[in-house]
Amino acid sequence: MTGPAATASEAGSAGVGDRRFFTWAEPPDEFILENGASLGPVTIAYETWGELSPRRDNAVLVAHAFSGDSHAAGFFPDDPPGAKPGWWDFMIGPGKGLDTSRYFVICANMLGGCRGSTGPSSVNPETGAPYGLTFPMMTIGDVVRTQKRLLDHLGISKLHGVIGGSVGGMQVLEWCVRYPDMVRAAIPIATTLRHSALAIAFNEIARQAIMADPNWHRGNYYDGQSPDLGLAVARMVGHVTYLSDEAMRRKFGRRLQNKQSFSYGFDVDFQVESYLRYQGSKFVQRFDANSLLYITKAADYFDLAQREPPAPTLADIGGVAIKFLVISYSSDWLYPTYQAKEIVRALKRSGLNVSSCEIEADLGHDAFLVDDPRLSRLVAGFLDGIDGA
Amino acid sequence: MTGPAATASEAGSAGVGDRRFFTWAEPPDEFILENGASLGPVTIAYETWGELSPRRDNAVLVAHAFSGDSHAAGFFPDDPPGAKPGWWDFMIGPGKGLDTSRYFVICANMLGGCRGSTGPSSVNPETGAPYGLTFPMMTIGDVVRTQKRLLDHLGISKLHGVIGGSVGGMQVLEWCVRYPDMVRAAIPIATTLRHSALAIAFNEIARQAIMADPNWHRGNYYDGQSPDLGLAVARMVGHVTYLSDEAMRRKFGRRLQNKQSFSYGFDVDFQVESYLRYQGSKFVQRFDANSLLYITKAADYFDLAQREPPAPTLADIGGVAIKFLVISYSSDWLYPTYQAKEIVRALKRSGLNVSSCEIEADLGHDAFLVDDPRLSRLVAGFLDGIDGA
Repeated sequence: MTGPAATASEAGSAGVGDRRFFTWAEPPDEFILENGASLGPVTIAYETWGELSPRRDNAVLVAHAFSGDSHAAGFFPDDPPGAKPGWWDFMIGPGKGLDTSRYFVICANMLGGCRGSTGPSSVNPETGAPYGLTFPMMTIGDVVRTQKRLLDHLGISKLHGVIGGSVGGMQVLEWCVRYPDMVRAAIPIATTLRHSALAIAFNEIARQAIMADPNWHRGNYYDGQSPDLGLAVARMVGHVTYLSDEAMRRKFGRRLQNKQSFSYGFDVDFQVESYLRYQGSKFVQRFDANSLLYITKAADYFDLAQREPPAPTLADIGGVAIKFLVISYSSDWLYPTYQAKEIVRALKRSGLNVSSCEIEADLGHDAFLVDDPRLSRLVAGFLDGIDGA
Repeated sequence: MTGPAATASEAGSAGVGDRRFFTWAEPPDEFILENGASLGPVTIAYETWGELSPRRDNAVLVAHAFSGDSHAAGFFPDDPPGAKPGWWDFMIGPGKGLDTSRYFVICANMLGGCRGSTGPSSVNPETGAPYGLTFPMMTIGDVVRTQKRLLDHLGISKLHGVIGGSVGGMQVLEWCVRYPDMVRAAIPIATTLRHSALAIAFNEIARQAIMADPNWHRGNYYDGQSPDLGLAVARMVGHVTYLSDEAMRRKFGRRLQNKQSFSYGFDVDFQVESYLRYQGSKFVQRFDANSLLYITKAADYFDLAQREPPAPTLADIGGVAIKFLVISYSSDWLYPTYQAKEIVRALKRSGLNVSSCEIEADLGHDAFLVDDPRLSRLVAGFLDGIDGA
């Protein structure tokens, strides 16, 4: 598994079953971001499952959502007993929706993240200290451009498919406008063409919660206490938007936590309070507050219908051969089905080949992360019908 | 305007047009709350509009929502030019939905609030310092019981109507189960029978945002800096839940604030961000963070379908003569129409006289606060059809 990028270093390779783990970097070159800033070196952490075919034509790129990482399936060699597998384990494996006996599946931690790829918590080689807010603001376009460099490095010039949900779905669409000749099949899930005012509002609340934490120190907290309380509140906001009214009624209702009656105080009374506090406190152990700031902002900037040249829009890819499957969930109120329909309409206006499906589910936006054979079958069938692999 | 409560003091009386302003208190008696705690003295700030009829049978009680106050209509004598009138000015006045040429309209700041009524920012006479978290946890039932004392004081033994939206609507329903013989007409608006997991979740996030602010000091901040940043984030959460996806698209869309292009930083880019930051910073000037904690908790505890005896439920008022008009708004996702229908079903199960109306509006939960002749006409017509005034 070596590619044409001679300067790239590979490290951390380890395998369990069909899983591999690499790190890609490009020192001393600089990466020029969409806003004109430069960054280097850039490290992109990624994992792969399955085998790249001799013709290098069976790759499927999985783009993760805002708090995800490259560990989309399987286990790490040093996982303790009982560890959870990667975040899309039900989708990736032999015979699964992304069948690793046929496809070479790749997932990379996004630029700006905090799980191995370069982000605000990475050390700026010019200063020897973490970037913090000196990290340049990246866009979804920049994220996709680093993924393109990774594919160059792997010697892959055409993707059989690119798939992802939420912010991952934005990357899917961005791939199609940036590199339309490199994609055969695109599956954007639970996502949008342009971030809505409601979605921006929730992201802004999450950011304000972090920036209100005095431990944030305008992003310079890496040598001291982290803004954990602010980050936890931000995560709670996210979690509510990922669920639905129906799912929360079913999952929690008004059930009390370990109590027969109300506390008449500010400790946890209801299970839903306990759930949110737990999710918030768990998140701060694995995620960097500055990464949340950057990634939410990149999502807010995302608009494939209207943006400044030279960034391409959906209108610029008329006539390309990509086949699209646009998937939404009936109870997703963060990226509702009407926004999936906007994607479909825009693609059709560009004369593209589009199928779409709304999956009935009461789980809200998070539904794409929950084991559901309907999604697996839909994706498997769609990829199977694409010529070339 | 004197009532039977001989120990009550009246102060701050001032009139502009048909508006009056009093303060009611009951020292040195103690008020026993639903959780068993005692509190005293209790002051309830209230305002009235119109004239109480000689038979004292034309009173309409307006219950305000969580961040409201007694100033439901008109102006204060010392209002500067250009000041905004009270929060329901379009509803209260001669010829309006609550016609002050016919009805004596009363609105009281709720117990636990911070606009003249006793709450956590009030001075505890035993310590000489503000209550803070030593303020006893009150319920919606307790709020209504203080309103009942106010009516006793005003010499009103029967309300022509009780009306309110959101947390005010909870008070309307609570009035009906606590004092069913004192109410002729009840108009709960944009409210619920029992706080849902989704609504509890958003309230919990707001509380966590406040409690994460180091200036909060477990509620002891009255002699120092207030938890303004946390309270502002809490308010932003509230504001998003009061709007709707549609309203936010129409009101803000993706329009930029004072800019031609993105900042690629964490200052305001979008108008919706500016709006939220403004609402947050404005709110901290008029509201007490601890009051938010107490009032949201009272709302979360609210459940008229199932609760511990001796608190009455809707099932306990079968056969009473109250006429109900249950109003919801089509785009309210905090207290959606399906929850209004639950109220209607529960009332019908108790054999009560219920009408209901869903108003088509894209403004979300806040719609009941926005001038709409449909609401005015609906309320005026309903109250007009009630015998007795």
